[in-house]
Amino acid sequence: MEPDLKEPSLHIWQQIVQTALREDRSEYDVTTQSTVLKEQVGTGVLKFKQNGTLAGMRAAETAFKYMDPGTLMSKVLPDGTQVENGSTIAIVEGTLQAILSAERVALNLLQRLSGVATLTTEMVSQLSQYPNVSVVDTRKTTPGLRSLERYAVRCGGGSNHRDNLQDGVLIKDNHIAAAQKRGVGISELIANVRRQIPHTLQIEIEADSPELAEQAVLAGADIVMLDNMTPDTMEKIIRSVRKSKQAEHVMFEASGGITNATIEAVAAAGVDLISVGALTHSAAAIDIGLDISIN
Amino acid sequence: MEPDLKEPSLHIWQQIVQTALREDRSEYDVTTQSTVLKEQVGTGVLKFKQNGTLAGMRAAETAFKYMDPGTLMSKVLPDGTQVENGSTIAIVEGTLQAILSAERVALNLLQRLSGVATLTTEMVSQLSQYPNVSVVDTRKTTPGLRSLERYAVRCGGGSNHRDNLQDGVLIKDNHIAAAQKRGVGISELIANVRRQIPHTLQIEIEADSPELAEQAVLAGADIVMLDNMTPDTMEKIIRSVRKSKQAEHVMFEASGGITNATIEAVAAAGVDLISVGALTHSAAAIDIGLDISIN
Amino acid sequence: MEPDLKEPSLHIWQQIVQTALREDRSEYDVTTQSTVLKEQVGTGVLKFKQNGTLAGMRAAETAFKYMDPGTLMSKVLPDGTQVENGSTIAIVEGTLQAILSAERVALNLLQRLSGVATLTTEMVSQLSQYPNVSVVDTRKTTPGLRSLERYAVRCGGGSNHRDNLQDGVLIKDNHIAAAQKRGVGISELIANVRRQIPHTLQIEIEADSPELAEQAVLAGADIVMLDNMTPDTMEKIIRSVRKSKQAEHVMFEASGGITNATIEAVAAAGVDLISVGALTHSAAAIDIGLDISIN
Amino acid sequence: MEPDLKEPSLHIWQQIVQTALREDRSEYDVTTQSTVLKEQVGTGVLKFKQNGTLAGMRAAETAFKYMDPGTLMSKVLPDGTQVENGSTIAIVEGTLQAILSAERVALNLLQRLSGVATLTTEMVSQLSQYPNVSVVDTRKTTPGLRSLERYAVRCGGGSNHRDNLQDGVLIKDNHIAAAQKRGVGISELIANVRRQIPHTLQIEIEADSPELAEQAVLAGADIVMLDNMTPDTMEKIIRSVRKSKQAEHVMFEASGGITNATIEAVAAAGVDLISVGALTHSAAAIDIGLDISIN
Amino acid sequence: MEPDLKEPSLHIWQQIVQTALREDRSEYDVTTQSTVLKEQVGTGVLKFKQNGTLAGMRAAETAFKYMDPGTLMSKVLPDGTQVENGSTIAIVEGTLQAILSAERVALNLLQRLSGVATLTTEMVSQLSQYPNVSVVDTRKTTPGLRSLERYAVRCGGGSNHRDNLQDGVLIKDNHIAAAQKRGVGISELIANVRRQIPHTLQIEIEADSPELAEQAVLAGADIVMLDNMTPDTMEKIIRSVRKSKQAEHVMFEASGGITNATIEAVAAAGVDLISVGALTHSAAAIDIGLDISIN
Amino acid sequence: MEPDLKEPSLHIWQQIVQTALREDRSEYDVTTQSTVLKEQVGTGVLKFKQNGTLAGMRAAETAFKYMDPGTLMSKVLPDGTQVENGSTIAIVEGTLQAILSAERVALNLLQRLSGVATLTTEMVSQLSQYPNVSVVDTRKTTPGLRSLERYAVRCGGGSNHRDNLQDGVLIKDNHIAAAQKRGVGISELIANVRRQIPHTLQIEIEADSPELAEQAVLAGADIVMLDNMTPDTMEKIIRSVRKSKQAEHVMFEASGGITNATIEAVAAAGVDLISVGALTHSAAAIDIGLDISIN
Repeated sequence: MEPDLKEPSLHIWQQIVQTALREDRSEYDVTTQSTVLKEQVGTGVLKFKQNGTLAGMRAAETAFKYMDPGTLMSKVLPDGTQVENGSTIAIVEGTLQAILSAERVALNLLQRLSGVATLTTEMVSQLSQYPNVSVVDTRKTTPGLRSLERYAVRCGGGSNHRDNLQDGVLIKDNHIAAAQKRGVGISELIANVRRQIPHTLQIEIEADSPELAEQAVLAGADIVMLDNMTPDTMEKIIRSVRKSKQAEHVMFEASGGITNATIEAVAAAGVDLISVGALTHSAAAIDIGLDISIN
Repeated sequence: MEPDLKEPSLHIWQQIVQTALREDRSEYDVTTQSTVLKEQVGTGVLKFKQNGTLAGMRAAETAFKYMDPGTLMSKVLPDGTQVENGSTIAIVEGTLQAILSAERVALNLLQRLSGVATLTTEMVSQLSQYPNVSVVDTRKTTPGLRSLERYAVRCGGGSNHRDNLQDGVLIKDNHIAAAQKRGVGISELIANVRRQIPHTLQIEIEADSPELAEQAVLAGADIVMLDNMTPDTMEKIIRSVRKSKQAEHVMFEASGGITNATIEAVAAAGVDLISVGALTHSAAAIDIGLDISIN
Repeated sequence: MEPDLKEPSLHIWQQIVQTALREDRSEYDVTTQSTVLKEQVGTGVLKFKQNGTLAGMRAAETAFKYMDPGTLMSKVLPDGTQVENGSTIAIVEGTLQAILSAERVALNLLQRLSGVATLTTEMVSQLSQYPNVSVVDTRKTTPGLRSLERYAVRCGGGSNHRDNLQDGVLIKDNHIAAAQKRGVGISELIANVRRQIPHTLQIEIEADSPELAEQAVLAGADIVMLDNMTPDTMEKIIRSVRKSKQAEHVMFEASGGITNATIEAVAAAGVDLISVGALTHSAAAIDIGLDISIN
Repeated sequence: MEPDLKEPSLHIWQQIVQTALREDRSEYDVTTQSTVLKEQVGTGVLKFKQNGTLAGMRAAETAFKYMDPGTLMSKVLPDGTQVENGSTIAIVEGTLQAILSAERVALNLLQRLSGVATLTTEMVSQLSQYPNVSVVDTRKTTPGLRSLERYAVRCGGGSNHRDNLQDGVLIKDNHIAAAQKRGVGISELIANVRRQIPHTLQIEIEADSPELAEQAVLAGADIVMLDNMTPDTMEKIIRSVRKSKQAEHVMFEASGGITNATIEAVAAAGVDLISVGALTHSAAAIDIGLDISIN
Repeated sequence: MEPDLKEPSLHIWQQIVQTALREDRSEYDVTTQSTVLKEQVGTGVLKFKQNGTLAGMRAAETAFKYMDPGTLMSKVLPDGTQVENGSTIAIVEGTLQAILSAERVALNLLQRLSGVATLTTEMVSQLSQYPNVSVVDTRKTTPGLRSLERYAVRCGGGSNHRDNLQDGVLIKDNHIAAAQKRGVGISELIANVRRQIPHTLQIEIEADSPELAEQAVLAGADIVMLDNMTPDTMEKIIRSVRKSKQAEHVMFEASGGITNATIEAVAAAGVDLISVGALTHSAAAIDIGLDISIN
Repeated sequence: MEPDLKEPSLHIWQQIVQTALREDRSEYDVTTQSTVLKEQVGTGVLKFKQNGTLAGMRAAETAFKYMDPGTLMSKVLPDGTQVENGSTIAIVEGTLQAILSAERVALNLLQRLSGVATLTTEMVSQLSQYPNVSVVDTRKTTPGLRSLERYAVRCGGGSNHRDNLQDGVLIKDNHIAAAQKRGVGISELIANVRRQIPHTLQIEIEADSPELAEQAVLAGADIVMLDNMTPDTMEKIIRSVRKSKQAEHVMFEASGGITNATIEAVAAAGVDLISVGALTHSAAAIDIGLDISIN
């Protein structure tokens, strides 16, 4: 098996989990500290309570271990698994205090990330006929959780768009308008950008009309984002543009309000990438339970 | 108008917005910095693109001002407004670079918080016949955003449960089981807890059976959470328990999988509070757009 | 033995100890680094040099281990022990450099916390005839050390008032006056507060007159703080108020300038809680020595 | 008037005040936020309720301004003033919410620092006959507050010993013993230290016997600390050692359990400096009140 | 004039300057605080004491303003200017304490950044005959100062390579060897990488032989780094590879030990980019003086 | 062997290395994560590629271990060694991903610190005839790296001047001028300073003329810095001043533009210390390679 960029490093999980535990004041859990003895130990079973794609096991493990480094979590299923309702995904053993004080944070992250992964799987599975079309995320992620949500998208079978404003150029309508305002057209703009950015970056340009798409390609854009268009329009543009020699290596990304209902038609239009903001901004949490037995 | 706990302090907004801008590496926005002149200014209009309850205007303002303190944002509608599709909520003026580099973070927070507020409004509006029943949030919030999401719940007409593990006691099944394991029953447990916690805290106990609910009340619990019960069962318990003198001041909270479809029946059962995790863990983002014109 | 909320988590100790060591620039200890070899090891004996109650052993251990994780500290007596002058409380073994560079910070915390515990023990021991009366701390703690000082109060046999401005409601004279200024009386005020705060919180109200105390009880306050009153006045208020049905569950807290000389009379007045700011704002440090022998 | 090192910079105050306000969760003050309107403003009068030396006005100002930058604090008396019981020291004007939520932190710091200044003034005032003898603090300060407490000592008329383990060399018994263990005597030790430390530092050595004091002087120590000796012993040592040419520039510091009762005799023994740990580790807080009127 | 990515945002300067001032303990400047009155003001003139390219004015301004926000700095020459020995670059006015306590940090940053800019200008000026060849930096920057040093390179007329390990793909010998070890050749490797990375990134591959360079191009690399080769070898490779259709858009980067003496020959070999580690790892500081007059 | 202040503590290395790794976004290394399997391990050999003095091994070790705590680094040569071109200094074993993602940061620090050490060795070796003359660093260090660069100077055989503005007094021309402006002469100024600073500090004064040097000595300065003078002038001043009784213990420091070419003559002039800013502000990095073989 080849490398797959999958798992963020431990420090990334730790930083987010620690922020969450502090927000919840887990070390000041008056209920647990006044009802449970320090010495009491238990076993918790993490179970999916609906079907879904698993993502974020490390979040749970990190939360439990933060409260007590002696806690052990055995993973039964790896991230990326499509889990059936009722299946056990992991077993955690340790002091009851640690398990109970970290429970909410562990579940909050696990449920949210599995929600993102599950929605991604749903979208991706519509495209089995289009193996060369990628479903990609956007920057419409939960503030503070982007690294983990991008990972959840990968767990669900999707791919990642740029991570942030530095590792990709995406020239949008307002950037173009700003240049036009000072008399700079698309070609000159792309040349100016290319001259300034690190040569390790591609240039993507958002086009909301066939004319702009064509212009962008002629001006040397590496990627064209077709924004909020019908599959028909996209297909026409791609067909027309592909004829020019410059477009040979250009990639096309479809974007804007694409849903389960429309994604297959969009893929059929001939795009290379389909970006879906809903993957991260509107995925519902997956219901996951923690059943604890006291040893 | 009386005080209403509504708006978190500026420092709280700033800390979250700053984390989000750093995550997005907004100060390294290669696209904007290579396409827009520092001197170019513009005007942005924030508009709802669907119906919903507004929450989080301060997040947007804070993001734009972080990028350039000279940015001005005029609020057209206050948080808490039920906004119609197409309505303008605010106008932002400043350098184009600041507006464009902060746009995504501003919208991510505003859309998410408005999503929480909107879902809350939907739930609350079902209960117009039950003015004494509160819809409350849970700790199932987005890690790192709890203060803001709790505020969004208030904007939507809901109330807040405890903020964290320190400002409320909620004795759950596992806490009870841990005590039983060492031979400590409900009455003794509640007495022990009362002796240890600050006297400024109430004691809430989760009951998954009529028997436990009754026991808890007799043992002096201040609030009883009826977990995952049908409205019928809840009604019977409340009617039966209310008879005892000890229950006079006890509050009842319904919890567990309550939806738009069931919330009215739950209220009719006689509870005081209905807690809904979905308010924060599964609210879809509201679509809000930023239309920019270049001066 | 039942749980007792005693010991703050390791992360809390670590954060405070680390701040203190950085302030002392312990890692830049020019004296120790230029006089002692890295390889030299030693044994330190921590001894009380006066009578007192022990609190804060973990602070010392954390400081020594921060400088060198290999340092070992064996506790001879547990926190909460009433220690005789001359008794050994712990033995520390490790590199001389680690012991000497951390010594001052270790002792500063241990002496201060033991000072708080000792003063608490003195106050509590006056009340042996009043087992249902608690001596509680206030928010008059050393900035930055509140969690530890509250723990020291517990070590000394006292109880804790609210930790901060979020986990308890305490309506004081100025809050009442602010409401009156806009025409809101006690009853309405308490109702307003109850409607806004999480239902997991009690409402305490400060009363500086018998009238206000009575009003507060009738208005539904859960706790009444009798501020700066003579034992006589307090007794009269409590006797009078207790007659009303609403006062059945109300607790009374005495507050304001209570000393060793007056505490027993206050307890005899019938209050449930006696809060003493001096426990944390004016406790003198206990003299504790560290005798080092070089192996 | 010449410069006097008096006032720490604003950033130092801000960092400590911010830590304290976060610890108190001042931005989550449920009482104030549910009883006081955002628009209500008031005036607070800070008054000494006992005699004492004032120190720390900036702490109060910084706390109020953190909660609301629009708060104004007019200082009536400057730090360092010996204030009579009942005197007004400052007037604060601003929103009631800001004043009430910051009140405790403002007073905690002001009372503590004024306590340190007051105790210092008491000690210093005993030495009016000895203008060349300085009363100096030690490193026995409150963890996290050292910069402010050292400032309070200066406000009280005292001087500062080294701030931390880097800006002064103080060779103590254990350092000497460590050297002896490997066959290195005082002379060689001092030479070794001198060779390693920045040449901008003096070398002070702690002596617990007349012999050691003499040795230290001959070996080139710049300062000798006479630890836990009677005034008589100190006088003899100083008289004897002063005879040698090397001792011409040597300073003598008295240390160890010096109190109001003994300090004058110690000064009379001929020392240059008297260090008193109690200044910072055992000063009782000064009672300072904040009387608020609502505009 | 078109945008030019030039100036890092204020927050980036502030963070680095603040770290430097804390390291220097500028707020504990015992010399300045004991020799200069708070009220004394002065004027400082910043002057180049050798020829060079200016970079980093904002660092100086930020340092002075941190110590006292009232300090004013008037820039006489902008960053990027080639300054003659003796020329004034800026004038600073404010309290003497602020100027003196920040002086060292201000100069340290200004001198270092101007050193980088000057060395860059020297290299770039060799290439006046080759307007399409860029001189670019590397990741061999000073830890903690990368954003500023990259800016200094731009001030000197150079361009920037990738900023960090996320905004560019550079497959080096060890990455290739790791793939070969598991039986994966160049073509498969590049395809695997392309499938995983965001589509906004180019793929650059390091080649240490003509064969590898050719393979890389055929396998679809976007950029080829020719590492440690003579100009002759580079020229042959480029000429040979350019013949293939795939190489049409490929860029060539020369790297490895290139100096003032060799850079022109390297450019003549036909490369697009020349990366020079010495720009940031070995630039000597430029001598800049601050002459202060006291008002 | 006596103690030598050599090695900064682990926490200091960790903090700087962590800042550097975050700046490089080492945990988001898209190249390594998409080309190397998590399970692949390798061995790296660190070798000097030119002659030089080694300093900073701990930086490399800390960087590799941060990426994977299981990485092992065996040091072949200790810091302070004068290493021949081609010699192996250490061997690192661990996962390839950890080694490759940390490589640049490890080398950047190691090369820079070895550069400082090497330049120091060159300067120090010129003074073999003057064993009592120290070569010392200045505060002209790289912002953020001072602790490590001071250590590198020690590795190269040099000594350290004060670390920061708190652990030494150095009265410069502007301080003197500020005092004169308000009518305070050298003698009074030194007395004022002495009265205010901790008695653990020496007073050094910068003199740019023979007159000032003499005045300073008579006024009680402990150290005189002779700034930007010829060896001849320095010699005359020292000879003349040494005659006075007050100068017996005074040290003389030469400063200002001293190079390899002039340092011996400066030493011959009779100074005790020679401070050289170039040691840290202009040392070129030493070329060190990491050859990796894949297991």
